[in-house]
Amino acid sequence: MRKIGLHEIEDIALGAALLGAGGGGDPYIGKLVAMSAIRECGPVTLLSPEEVPDDALIVPIAMMGAPTILSEKGIGGKEYQVLYDTVSQFYGKPVYAFMPIEAGGVNSMLPIAAAARLNLPLVDVDGMGRAFPELQMVTFTIGGLSATPMALTDEKGNHVIFRTITNKWTEELARAVTMACGGSVSVSLFTMNGKQMKQYGVHGIVTRSERLGAAIRKVKEIQEGTPEDNFLEFSQGIRLFKGKITDVLRETRGAFNFGRVMLDGTGSAKGHQASVTFQNENLCAEVDGKIVGTTPDLICLVDTETFAPIPTDALKYGKRVMVIGLQCFPLWRTPEGLELVGPRYFGIDTDYIPIEQRAKEGC
Amino acid sequence: MRKIGLHEIEDIALGAALLGAGGGGDPYIGKLVAMSAIRECGPVTLLSPEEVPDDALIVPIAMMGAPTILSEKGIGGKEYQVLYDTVSQFYGKPVYAFMPIEAGGVNSMLPIAAAARLNLPLVDVDGMGRAFPELQMVTFTIGGLSATPMALTDEKGNHVIFRTITNKWTEELARAVTMACGGSVSVSLFTMNGKQMKQYGVHGIVTRSERLGAAIRKVKEIQEGTPEDNFLEFSQGIRLFKGKITDVLRETRGAFNFGRVMLDGTGSAKGHQASVTFQNENLCAEVDGKIVGTTPDLICLVDTETFAPIPTDALKYGKRVMVIGLQCFPLWRTPEGLELVGPRYFGIDTDYIPIEQRAKEGC
Repeated sequence: MRKIGLHEIEDIALGAALLGAGGGGDPYIGKLVAMSAIRECGPVTLLSPEEVPDDALIVPIAMMGAPTILSEKGIGGKEYQVLYDTVSQFYGKPVYAFMPIEAGGVNSMLPIAAAARLNLPLVDVDGMGRAFPELQMVTFTIGGLSATPMALTDEKGNHVIFRTITNKWTEELARAVTMACGGSVSVSLFTMNGKQMKQYGVHGIVTRSERLGAAIRKVKEIQEGTPEDNFLEFSQGIRLFKGKITDVLRETRGAFNFGRVMLDGTGSAKGHQASVTFQNENLCAEVDGKIVGTTPDLICLVDTETFAPIPTDALKYGKRVMVIGLQCFPLWRTPEGLELVGPRYFGIDTDYIPIEQRAKEGC
Repeated sequence: MRKIGLHEIEDIALGAALLGAGGGGDPYIGKLVAMSAIRECGPVTLLSPEEVPDDALIVPIAMMGAPTILSEKGIGGKEYQVLYDTVSQFYGKPVYAFMPIEAGGVNSMLPIAAAARLNLPLVDVDGMGRAFPELQMVTFTIGGLSATPMALTDEKGNHVIFRTITNKWTEELARAVTMACGGSVSVSLFTMNGKQMKQYGVHGIVTRSERLGAAIRKVKEIQEGTPEDNFLEFSQGIRLFKGKITDVLRETRGAFNFGRVMLDGTGSAKGHQASVTFQNENLCAEVDGKIVGTTPDLICLVDTETFAPIPTDALKYGKRVMVIGLQCFPLWRTPEGLELVGPRYFGIDTDYIPIEQRAKEGC
C-alpha cells in the first residue's frame, strides 16, 4: 500500500503511454483529468493485488470512444459516482476498489481520477499490461469472465447497463450508445472479485508504468553510457530500428484507425527500410521486409532525443524515431492468449514468435 | 378480475387497432404473438386497476422499433422473462403485473403474450388510451414519472437497462441500441407502483378495445338502423368525412412515417375534399380546408364496408374510407396534456378545440 500523488502521476502517465504501444490515447488529457482530481480530493491509495480480499468487488474504469473527442467534450467529474452507484446497486454490495483495464495515456489515468474522487483505493493491476483495440482483448476473457454487466455513463448523467450474450455484442451495443452520447463515455466493465483479479490480472502495472516514466525522465541525467543504452536497459526494450518517417498511411474503418508508418534508416541502420502497421496500437514491425516483432509483444515508437513515446495519431513525416520491442505479459503467449490477440487475429499472416527470439535469430 | 382467452384477443386486437388512430402497428402480427402464447400457456387474468395494491410493481411491456421489422425478425419468446428478471432485480422485488403502454395493433398484444408466458396478471390500463409516436407521450409523463429505468432486450438475449436525464435522451439511446439490435426489440419502461398506475393511467382500455372490436365484428348482424349508424353509435365516433383516397404522400424522416392522405367525397360528401395528416398516427383532419379534428383526439380511418380500421401504412389509392373522430382521454385535454401531444407540438398551427365542439360548430 502506498500513495499516488501529483509527482507519481507524471511518471505513470509517461510510462503508460509507452506501454500503450502507439495507442491508449493522449497522455496529456489523461494526466490533466487525474491531476485535477488529486488536487481537489487528495492522493490515491495504491493497493498491491495481494492486499485485496478474495470476495471484494473490483471495478475497472475506462473511457470508451475516441480520445480526440474526449479532449473536446471533457469529463464532468460525476461519472465515477454514477458508475459506482450503478455497479454497487447491481451487485448489492459496495465497490472495494477501482482498477485500470489497460495501460495507455488515457485509460491509465481515469481510474486514478475515479479513485481520488470517490476516496477508494486503486489496485496495481490491469487486464492487458499494454493497450489493445477491442473490448474483449483482456486477460480476463482468457479466465472466462464476461465484459458485462457493463455500466456506461456520459458527462450529462445518462447511464446504461449492458448484459450481452457475447463480448462482441457488448462491443456493438456499447459502441452504438457511445456514438449517440457524442462519441466518448465513461464505462466500467469486467467487474470481478478479488480472487479473479489476482488470478488473471497483470500485476504491478501501475508501478511498472511509473518506473518506466521515471526512467524516461531521468535517462539523460545518468553519467555512464549513452542515453539510448540507458533507456533500453531501463525499459528492457529491444532496439528494432532507428530512422526517419518517410510516409504515414492512415485509414479509418469502423471505429478504428488502421495504418502503416514507413521509415528510412539512420545511423547504423542507414540504407535499410522499416515499416510498422497498426490498428490503434502497433501490431507488426518489419525491417527490409522481414518481420522483427508482432502483437501481442509491444512495438513502441519513441522520439530519438527525448525517448517520449509517440502515439500512432502523432506520427508525422520527417520525425526521427526509434522502434523498440517489449515482451508482453506471459499469459498472452499461451494458445488462448494468441487466439485473442495474436498476429493472425489481426490478419497478419505469420505465427507468433516471441520478440526476443526473433531478435536473437536476426543476429 | 376476468380471463382473456383466444376469443377475447380477436376483439381486443381489432378494437385496439382502431384506437391506434392509424398507428400502433399491424394487428395481425400482434395477434399471432398473443395467441400462440395463450395456446401454449393458457388464458391471462385481467385485473381492473382497483384490484392492484398501491405498492405493487407494475411493468408496461412494449416493442420498440419498426413493426414491419418485427414481422420479419419475430419474437423469441424469452424476452419477457429477461425483462421480468432485469426489472425485478433492479427493484429488488417481484413484478406484480404487466400492462400495455399504448393501444395499437402490436403494443396491445405483446403485454398479453408476456402475461401468458410468465403467468402474471395484466392490468386493464394503459398510458395513452390510443397510440402516439414518441416515447414520452404518456399520461405518466404528466404525472412526473420517468421512462427510465427502462429495460430493453432483443430476441437473441442481449439486454440493456437505461437511466437517462430526460425522456428525450431515453428515446435517443434506446433508439441507437434498437438499431444495433436489428431494428426491433422488446422493452419495459415507465415502471411504476400501483398507486401511480391508478392515478395517471387510462383505466379500462383493454375492455374498451374488446368492446370496440366486438362492435365492429357484430355491427352488421343488428337488424335496426344502418351498419354505419350502428358502428358510430357503438364506437361513440363522430363522422368527419366519407370518400375515396385520391393520393397518399409519404416521407420517412428520423424513425417516423410522415404523410398526408387526400380524399374525394362520396355519397352526401360528393363534391367535397378532405385530407388527413399523420406522423405514424393520424394528427389532423381537414374538410374543404377547414380543420375538423386534431390530436390528441383520435382520428381514425375505417373501411366503409367492414369498418375495419386502416393503419396509415395500408392507405392506398382508390380505397373507400370513412374518417371518424373519437374523444381522447380527458387528461390529454389539460394544458399539460396539450403541451405533450397537442397540435402545436406536432407543428400544426391551431389551438386545440375538442372534436365534439368542432363538430357542433360545423353544423
